[in-house]
Amino acid sequence: MKPIQNTTPSVLTPLIFEEGTLKILDQRLLPDEERYVNLYRADDVAQAIECMMLRGAPLIGVAAAFGLALEAGALPHDEKTFRAGLDRALERLASSRPTAINLNRALVEGSRQIAVGTHPDQIARELLAAAHRLMRFEIEASARMGQAGAAHLDPGSRILTHCNTGRLATVGEGTALAVVRQAFREGRACRVTCTETRPWLQGARLTAYELVRDGVATELVTESVAGDRLLRHDFDWLIVGADRIGPDGRVANKMGTHMLSQLARIGGAHVMVVAPTTTIDWSWDADHPIPIEHRSAEEVWQATGSRRIPQGLRIENPVFDVTPPELVDWIITEDCGIEPVRGQSFDPARFGIPVAQHPMDPPGSIFQSLNESEE
Amino acid sequence: MKPIQNTTPSVLTPLIFEEGTLKILDQRLLPDEERYVNLYRADDVAQAIECMMLRGAPLIGVAAAFGLALEAGALPHDEKTFRAGLDRALERLASSRPTAINLNRALVEGSRQIAVGTHPDQIARELLAAAHRLMRFEIEASARMGQAGAAHLDPGSRILTHCNTGRLATVGEGTALAVVRQAFREGRACRVTCTETRPWLQGARLTAYELVRDGVATELVTESVAGDRLLRHDFDWLIVGADRIGPDGRVANKMGTHMLSQLARIGGAHVMVVAPTTTIDWSWDADHPIPIEHRSAEEVWQATGSRRIPQGLRIENPVFDVTPPELVDWIITEDCGIEPVRGQSFDPARFGIPVAQHPMDPPGSIFQSLNESEE
Repeated sequence: MKPIQNTTPSVLTPLIFEEGTLKILDQRLLPDEERYVNLYRADDVAQAIECMMLRGAPLIGVAAAFGLALEAGALPHDEKTFRAGLDRALERLASSRPTAINLNRALVEGSRQIAVGTHPDQIARELLAAAHRLMRFEIEASARMGQAGAAHLDPGSRILTHCNTGRLATVGEGTALAVVRQAFREGRACRVTCTETRPWLQGARLTAYELVRDGVATELVTESVAGDRLLRHDFDWLIVGADRIGPDGRVANKMGTHMLSQLARIGGAHVMVVAPTTTIDWSWDADHPIPIEHRSAEEVWQATGSRRIPQGLRIENPVFDVTPPELVDWIITEDCGIEPVRGQSFDPARFGIPVAQHPMDPPGSIFQSLNESEE
Repeated sequence: MKPIQNTTPSVLTPLIFEEGTLKILDQRLLPDEERYVNLYRADDVAQAIECMMLRGAPLIGVAAAFGLALEAGALPHDEKTFRAGLDRALERLASSRPTAINLNRALVEGSRQIAVGTHPDQIARELLAAAHRLMRFEIEASARMGQAGAAHLDPGSRILTHCNTGRLATVGEGTALAVVRQAFREGRACRVTCTETRPWLQGARLTAYELVRDGVATELVTESVAGDRLLRHDFDWLIVGADRIGPDGRVANKMGTHMLSQLARIGGAHVMVVAPTTTIDWSWDADHPIPIEHRSAEEVWQATGSRRIPQGLRIENPVFDVTPPELVDWIITEDCGIEPVRGQSFDPARFGIPVAQHPMDPPGSIFQSLNESEE
């Protein structure tokens, strides 16, 4: 990894691939500084994901796809060393963010291409082409989700959002934030409030920053204030992203989503989850919990400014929770909207054409086969 | 104000009055350092309250009573200057923390003593005696609340608490934390978890510190994790303090209490509010909202570590919310427990004897007269 100072792009871009190099915006330095870092190998990408230099499920998927392509380009192209190196890279990348299904899917697709590939040069080209396809797909998906989601909002809606689901979480306008932006353009939103999103403060540091950078007047509150105001009927919509969506509409997302969705239900706000179809995990069985990432105690503790955690104090820092489908009013993907609260679940048949066209899901991929097994 | 380094007392004490000086533990430096600061005038006390050097409704009440006594001792004892100075001191102290009723009550009692007092020397003595009486009352009240509250818990209860309601919020064992300590002594608690309590982190910096300092194994989580775990039936009790309690059992307390109480109700945890009778505001009419203190945007923003708030970003920081009585299972005072959820409200008649004995409520005080007008 080599830090470089970039001229500020006119549109905030979390990931740039140019001249064979992956440039990643170091989100840890926001909102004070927009600094890009060059990544050259899969391990660089895995480290960048682990240390939260970049985050957001769709963005992580794209970054992992480029990480694998970078590795294929950098490894010696004798067959045995090449394949062993890619195996290590797949494993390294997979361990960097276990809850995000998009990462997992990008790697499954990568390993499929490695398996069917005939020569290192051809495999490296294919992996790079797949990464670019995935990036284009996510950009287009953002635009479609924005339009599809905003169409549900009445004019002048008061929106609450959680975590960061915008340009900094995807490579397009975002997932939930694409809906927010589109709603403002169409006059369907009069106010957007973001939670600070403890402990990593994605809302305070990223969402607030990218919205005001785009000229959207934004309000920031603690999760407790958001909860109190939800209960006092001060919001019409809670609009969030997802890290993984189950076939029944259950949603794994940033810790806090479950609580806010429950409070939204009581306070009369609708709950919309916005995520590309790459986020759906057809194999997520309700009886088998998915891995929930626990991060370090220090990540919570550092806000105190205190030098050390008092002896005898235990700090639990799970960073995702699971919202049951009955608390979700709408799930918006780039292809369709479903209403799990009315008992709708994802009908794989509705994904027939998109699945076949999906850049990470050519016939025979895990997505397609799971899809078929459920039909 | 003059900072002094104190030897660490064996029991954590937030306020010490000795040799005519008020020594206040600077809670902003916790948990890294136990440093006391000497206060000499009412304005010192008001500043200390405003800057959060000390906080906690019962403690603020005691500090304000001493602040008034200090002022009476320091002012020139010619009648006119003396009374004018005390008027200014009353006003200054009253503005320092508008939501805490205990502060208000201590000042109402002070102003009554000033009004009936015949000579500056005698008034100064009376104000100091009243401050000492209030301190003793709060210490005894803590012990009684601890016993009364713990008696409701089944053995092995899993407790969640919010904000700081312990030695650092009172001058005794605390309100909610007195119950927690007593429950541990009696084997009625197996686990205590505190929220970090954004934005000022009273839970992370104070509650966690004072509990582990007393040898109570404690867990710290963000509000979002507390909410998720409440919904997943991981707690038996939510036990909190109060800044003001209405005659119907409505509770003004640290922002987050409303949300957590609602989630506790859904997740099957009982909600207990623990506060001395000094916290009850008989005049709090449900139709007339009480003043809710809003603190600075910087208090929220500083956790980001960022140098400046992005232009166009609005940060709302109300620090109290109001929990309706239907979400409260038990209110424990030093005199009685009531169950507002079953339609019980505070019956002033039940406070007959304690009211007359109350150090801040001799016959003729506002407390007594409101009490009589409701009977």
